[in-house]
Order: sequence, then C-alpha cells, then structure tokens
Amino acid sequence: MSAPTQTPRVTRVTPLNNDASKWIHLEQIHYEDQTGAPRVWEVASRRTRGSAGVDAVAIGNVLLHPRKPASTLLVLQYRPPLDAYTVEWPAGLIDAAETPEQAALRELKEETGYEGRVVSVSPTLASDPGMTSANMQVAMVEVKLGEEEELPEQSLDEGEYIQRVVVPLSELYERLVAYSKEEKTVVSAKLFHWAAGLQFARENKYV
Amino acid sequence: MSAPTQTPRVTRVTPLNNDASKWIHLEQIHYEDQTGAPRVWEVASRRTRGSAGVDAVAIGNVLLHPRKPASTLLVLQYRPPLDAYTVEWPAGLIDAAETPEQAALRELKEETGYEGRVVSVSPTLASDPGMTSANMQVAMVEVKLGEEEELPEQSLDEGEYIQRVVVPLSELYERLVAYSKEEKTVVSAKLFHWAAGLQFARENKYV
Repeated sequence: MSAPTQTPRVTRVTPLNNDASKWIHLEQIHYEDQTGAPRVWEVASRRTRGSAGVDAVAIGNVLLHPRKPASTLLVLQYRPPLDAYTVEWPAGLIDAAETPEQAALRELKEETGYEGRVVSVSPTLASDPGMTSANMQVAMVEVKLGEEEELPEQSLDEGEYIQRVVVPLSELYERLVAYSKEEKTVVSAKLFHWAAGLQFARENKYV
Repeated sequence: MSAPTQTPRVTRVTPLNNDASKWIHLEQIHYEDQTGAPRVWEVASRRTRGSAGVDAVAIGNVLLHPRKPASTLLVLQYRPPLDAYTVEWPAGLIDAAETPEQAALRELKEETGYEGRVVSVSPTLASDPGMTSANMQVAMVEVKLGEEEELPEQSLDEGEYIQRVVVPLSELYERLVAYSKEEKTVVSAKLFHWAAGLQFARENKYV
C-alpha cells in the first residue's frame, strides 16, 4: 500500500444510467396505495445483495481494557458521495454466502485489526427507507484488550485508507459533535443516533 | 381523505433513467484518492435539496405526561422502496426556504398533530454515505402533554396514511425488536440505533 500523499478530491461528476452502473441502480415502483389508487415512487437499490438478504453490516463495538474506561473504535475515511471524511463504526457489505456475524468479524478484523465476540445482532433495518431499498444489521461486538496499548495491524484492500480512533463511551457524543465542526468531516447518522441515545440516558436518569 | 381499504401492494417495478426521474438521480464520481490514483464511485442523490443544504430532518421526540412514563411517538407507514411498513420517528424533507427547526415542528404537527419545543438540533449527518449523498439532521423535540389522553388530529397530505404509536422510552428497544418480527415490518436503522444506545446505557451503568 502506497503512503497517502494528498487529500482526495473530486475531479468530475457525470450522469450515470442503469446500463452503465455496476453497484447501484434506479427504479420506479408502481404500487397501489391503501385506497387502491395507483401511485409511483423512485428508489435507488444495490445490485450486490447476497443470500443473507441484507446489504450491509455495521460493527458497533465496545473495547474493554483492564484499566481504561470502556471505549469504542471509530473509522474515518474519505467518502466520495459526500466529498468528505466520514466518522462511522466499521461496516461493510455482506458477501454472497456470509452471515451477518461472519461479515462483522471479518470487516472488524480487516478495517481495524481487532478480533472480538459478537454479543448481539440487530434485526434487519432500513438504511434510508424514503429513498433506497438498502438495509443493514448492526452487530455489537465486544473486544477484550490486554495491557498493551498499540493498535493492531489493519488488512486493508488496495485503495482503502482508513484511520482508526478510539473514543471513551462517556465522551462519544461530544466527540461526534466536535468532529462535525471540522472541515470536510461528516458523522454517520446511525452512529450519531446511537451516541445520542446513550447520552440521553446519561442525562435523563428517569429512563 | 378516503378510508384505507387494503394493504398497499407493488404492481410493477421498471428501470428508471435520470432523464425520467423527478426525485433522485444516479451519478458517477470521478476522483483522485490519497495517492493521486484516479478512481470512480457510484452515488444516488436527491434532486430536492434546498437552501439549508440538508435534505431531511427527523423528529426525535419525548412526550412528557404529568403521570405517565416519558414516551416517544413513532410513525408506521407503508414505504414502497421496501414494500413494507416502516417504524420511524416522524421525518420529512426540508422545504427550500425552511430551517431544520421549522421543518421539524411543521412535520411533527402534520404527521402527528403535536406541537412541541425543539431542545436540540444535531449536526448535519450522512444518511448512508457509501451509497448516497443524502444527509439529514435530527431535532430533539419535547412535547408537554396535559392530562387528556386523546391523540390530536393529523393534517396529512392526500395519499399519506400514517399510524401513530406512543411507546414508553423504557420499552422502546424491546418494542422495536418485536416490531421487526411482524410481517412486512421494518424498523428504521437510525431510530433503532438511538434505542440501542439508550438501552446500552440502561444495561451498562459504567457509562
């Protein structure tokens, strides 16, 4: 892997039709609503959904260290759709014959070097149901750390540049708000919602 | 508004190209990565983004009643992209000249009949950054209820059928898991992440 030497930059954006696209395509859904009236809706879909019937898995993770506060590992990477760096939990598409659990542990290992234990897997969830058919599951993975401090080796694909950041859970919400104020940096809505739910519970003891 | 008489159903799905689409379109992004190597990425984008620079707002809401536990109002509606009913917080696109706060209170009133007070607005977040440029903000709205129990009147657009459900926050996570087991019912990933973060804090007092 060559060392990064510049901030990625968009050079050109061109219209794309379905006959030339490889990963996603656009469709018109013709449907009857609750009264029987005919209606249409526009949807973007992934072409890559495998036998699991689920497009992607996110790896919600908790790092437990013998002496340090419980933390979570985030990944920062350049995302061309936003022309920005995103702050997310590790995530990836589920390969054709994989289960979500297998994909979660594989992606965690590739993107972060960590090995963990899946403690729960969410139901299949709608990623952005007004606009896409994309769906995902979030696997919660617990990683037990030893005393040593160093981050393990990543095994990234050619062209992948992923920065890892470890954040104590008690600081997660504020850190995501702070990241959002940095130039060309956008936090994932799903990760932010998890952090906001956690923060809500910390601030409102009645729940 | 005519009364609903059937479960909505998809009659036909047809390919859609950009020249015939009204709401979303497909583009190819040509960019240079960190090493200067040319790469491409496929993205679906909304055509409707207004002056706020943000596509949509979700209304995270807390209902405070003098005697009942703190609750949240969810909306269930048929979503053609998934051919399923989704369970979400109220949400909607931000109109051209609206602020996210204005859009949040307008959508809450339209979809649920409630009037509330915006207590916080999130940074701009990436809805599904591997596949779309879509972004959103989540506004947290507090609704103070009186003693009366009845749900207020909705003001829905023609063709909108939205069912409202009030769920105590302490039961939210389990209720979303239960909804996911119902036929043709999918929970929104963002709402589920908020509930899972809340639940994580409730179960792990060390955060």
